[in-house]
Amino acid sequence: MKAQAIASFGEPSVFQTIELPKPEVIPGHVLIRVAATSVNPVDFKLRRGAMPAIAPEFPAVLHGDVAGVVEAVGEGVTTFKPGDEVYGCAGGFKGMGGALAEYMLADADLLALKPKSLSMKEAAALPLVAITAWESLIYRAKIQPGQTVLVHAATGGVGHIGIQLAKWAGAKVYTTVSSKEKAAIARDLGADTVINYRQQTVEEYVAEHTSGKGFDVVFDTVGKDNLDRSFAAAGMHGTVVSISTRSTHDLSPLHAKGLTLHVVFMLLRMLYDTQRAEHGKILFNVAKLVDQGKIRPLLDPKSFRFSEVAEAHRYAESGQAVGKVVVEV
Amino acid sequence: MKAQAIASFGEPSVFQTIELPKPEVIPGHVLIRVAATSVNPVDFKLRRGAMPAIAPEFPAVLHGDVAGVVEAVGEGVTTFKPGDEVYGCAGGFKGMGGALAEYMLADADLLALKPKSLSMKEAAALPLVAITAWESLIYRAKIQPGQTVLVHAATGGVGHIGIQLAKWAGAKVYTTVSSKEKAAIARDLGADTVINYRQQTVEEYVAEHTSGKGFDVVFDTVGKDNLDRSFAAAGMHGTVVSISTRSTHDLSPLHAKGLTLHVVFMLLRMLYDTQRAEHGKILFNVAKLVDQGKIRPLLDPKSFRFSEVAEAHRYAESGQAVGKVVVEV
Repeated sequence: MKAQAIASFGEPSVFQTIELPKPEVIPGHVLIRVAATSVNPVDFKLRRGAMPAIAPEFPAVLHGDVAGVVEAVGEGVTTFKPGDEVYGCAGGFKGMGGALAEYMLADADLLALKPKSLSMKEAAALPLVAITAWESLIYRAKIQPGQTVLVHAATGGVGHIGIQLAKWAGAKVYTTVSSKEKAAIARDLGADTVINYRQQTVEEYVAEHTSGKGFDVVFDTVGKDNLDRSFAAAGMHGTVVSISTRSTHDLSPLHAKGLTLHVVFMLLRMLYDTQRAEHGKILFNVAKLVDQGKIRPLLDPKSFRFSEVAEAHRYAESGQAVGKVVVEV
Repeated sequence: MKAQAIASFGEPSVFQTIELPKPEVIPGHVLIRVAATSVNPVDFKLRRGAMPAIAPEFPAVLHGDVAGVVEAVGEGVTTFKPGDEVYGCAGGFKGMGGALAEYMLADADLLALKPKSLSMKEAAALPLVAITAWESLIYRAKIQPGQTVLVHAATGGVGHIGIQLAKWAGAKVYTTVSSKEKAAIARDLGADTVINYRQQTVEEYVAEHTSGKGFDVVFDTVGKDNLDRSFAAAGMHGTVVSISTRSTHDLSPLHAKGLTLHVVFMLLRMLYDTQRAEHGKILFNVAKLVDQGKIRPLLDPKSFRFSEVAEAHRYAESGQAVGKVVVEV
C-alpha cells in the first residue's frame, strides 16, 4: 500500500510517498481503508522530533485522526463489520500504524461509527479534539447547567468543540478570540459572549462579565502564559482545565481561590493501552450530538490531498488555520 | 473580659493580657465562653505579620479554633441554646473576634455541637484541621473504597485527621513519617503502610507499594518541594490535593499523567462569608465520627494555659510538636 511516511525527523519536506506492506488484521482490531485524516499539533511535534519517546519507528506513518471504511475485522470484534464507516484517533504513535496510508490497523475500542450527517473529510476533523474536549468538560470539569464557562481560543481545534459541548451541557459560554472574523465564527458556534483578548485584559473582562467574581470553569486550550490568565479568570472554588501544562507556574492564585486544576492529556489511554474503550464511547456520544445538530466540526477552507501533506503541515504550523486542517486521500 | 492580644506583629513575646469589652451578641451569632483553643500555622503567621491583609485589627485577638459553652444566642439562631457545648473555627481574622479571650462572638453557621466523647481541650484541636481534611478528601478528591491514598505528614495537624478520614472512607492508606516513634503513632491512627521518607525516595516507595503505578490520591499537607514529590507519587489520571501552593512548580508531571490538582484553602468560606454553613455541617459529621470512635484528635503531650500562649506559639513554631498544640483557659 502507499503511505506518506517519514524516514527522519525534520521539516515538512521529510514526508515521502513510499510503499509499505498492507497491515494484517489482528484480534481486537479492524483494518480501515483510510478516506481522510486531520492535522493535530501532536502530529507536527512528532514529525519535528519533539516527542521521540512516543514517535513511531521509521519509516514512520504519522497521524492519529482517521475516517474511513472497515475493510476487515479481527477476532473478537463484534462492534464493527466490513463496510462500516468509522472514525477515531487510533495511531500514529510508537507501535501503532498511522492514518497517512491507504490502510490503517486500529484498535476497535478507539473507534465509533462516524456521524451519518458528516462527510469523511468532516468526520476526520473530530476525533482527537472532540475526545479532548469531552474528557475536559464532561468527565473532568463535570460542567453543570447555568455555570459560567470560559473557553479559550474559540476557533482552535479543541476550542471550537469546547464551545459547542459547553453550550449543549447548559453552560453560559464565554470565549476568547483575536479578531472580528473569529468573533463571528465563535458566535455562530454558540458562544453567548465573545471576548477579544487583544482589546481587554483578564481583569477587565472578569469585571465586565462576572462582576469581578471570575468564571466557574475556565478551559485553557493554549497553555504557557495563557494558563496564568486562566488561573486569574477563575472564580473562588473554580475549576481550570488545561490540555497543556509542560511549563512552570506560580500556583499562588490556586491557593488564594481554592481552585481545582484538571490536566487532560488525551493520548494517555491510547498510548498506555488502558481504558481505550472510553474513547470509542465518547466518539459514539459525539456522533449522536453531531447527528442531532448540536456539534459540528470547523474546517479550515483550505484542504489538502495525501500527496500534499507537507503543505498541510506547513499551513497548520503557521497558525493561520481556522479550525482543523484536513487531508484527504 | 480578659484577652491574650497583640498590639503589633512580631515574636511570641508580643502577646499581652489585656482587658477588652465583652462582645454583644448579634443576629446569626452566638457568644461562646471559651474553654480551649489550639494553635494552627495560620495563627503564628498572622502573629508574625505574614498575612496583614486578613489579620484582625489591633489590639488583635488571634486564634480561630475554639471549644466552649454557649452563653447567649443572637436573633435567628435556632441551632444552639445557652449551655450547649460547641466547637468550631470561627474567628481570629479581620472583622472577627478571636478565641484567645474569655468570650468569643462566632457565626452560628461555623459551629457544631462538640463531640460528646471529647473534653473541651480535645475538641479545640479539631476544627481547622478536620474541616481541611474533610474538604480535601471527601468534598474534593471524593475518595472511594479501595483507592490507594497517600497522606503526607502522618503526625501533622491535618495529616493525622487525613489518615483516619481516608481509612473511614474505605481507602488503602499510606503515610509518610520521619521517625520510628511517628511511625508507631501513624499505625495507631490506622495507616495500612507507613513510609519513612528519610529512608526511601518517592521512586522507591512508589515501586515498592504500587508496582511503580503511583497512588490514586496523594494528600499533600506540606507544600513547596513536597508538592513536587506528590506530583511524582501520583498515578496516571490520579489526584493530588494540596493545602499549600503558594510556590512555583514545573507542571510537566501533571501533563504526563493527566493529573487533577485540588487546592484547598480552608479559610475561604469563613473569610469571604460564603457558604459558611458547610463548615458547621462538616463539624457535625466529624463529631458523629468522633463519637463512633472513627476519628480522634492527636494532641501533643505538652499543653498550655492562656497566659502561656507565647510559649505555646514558640513550641508549635519549633516544629517539635506531634499533633496539635492546645491552649486552655
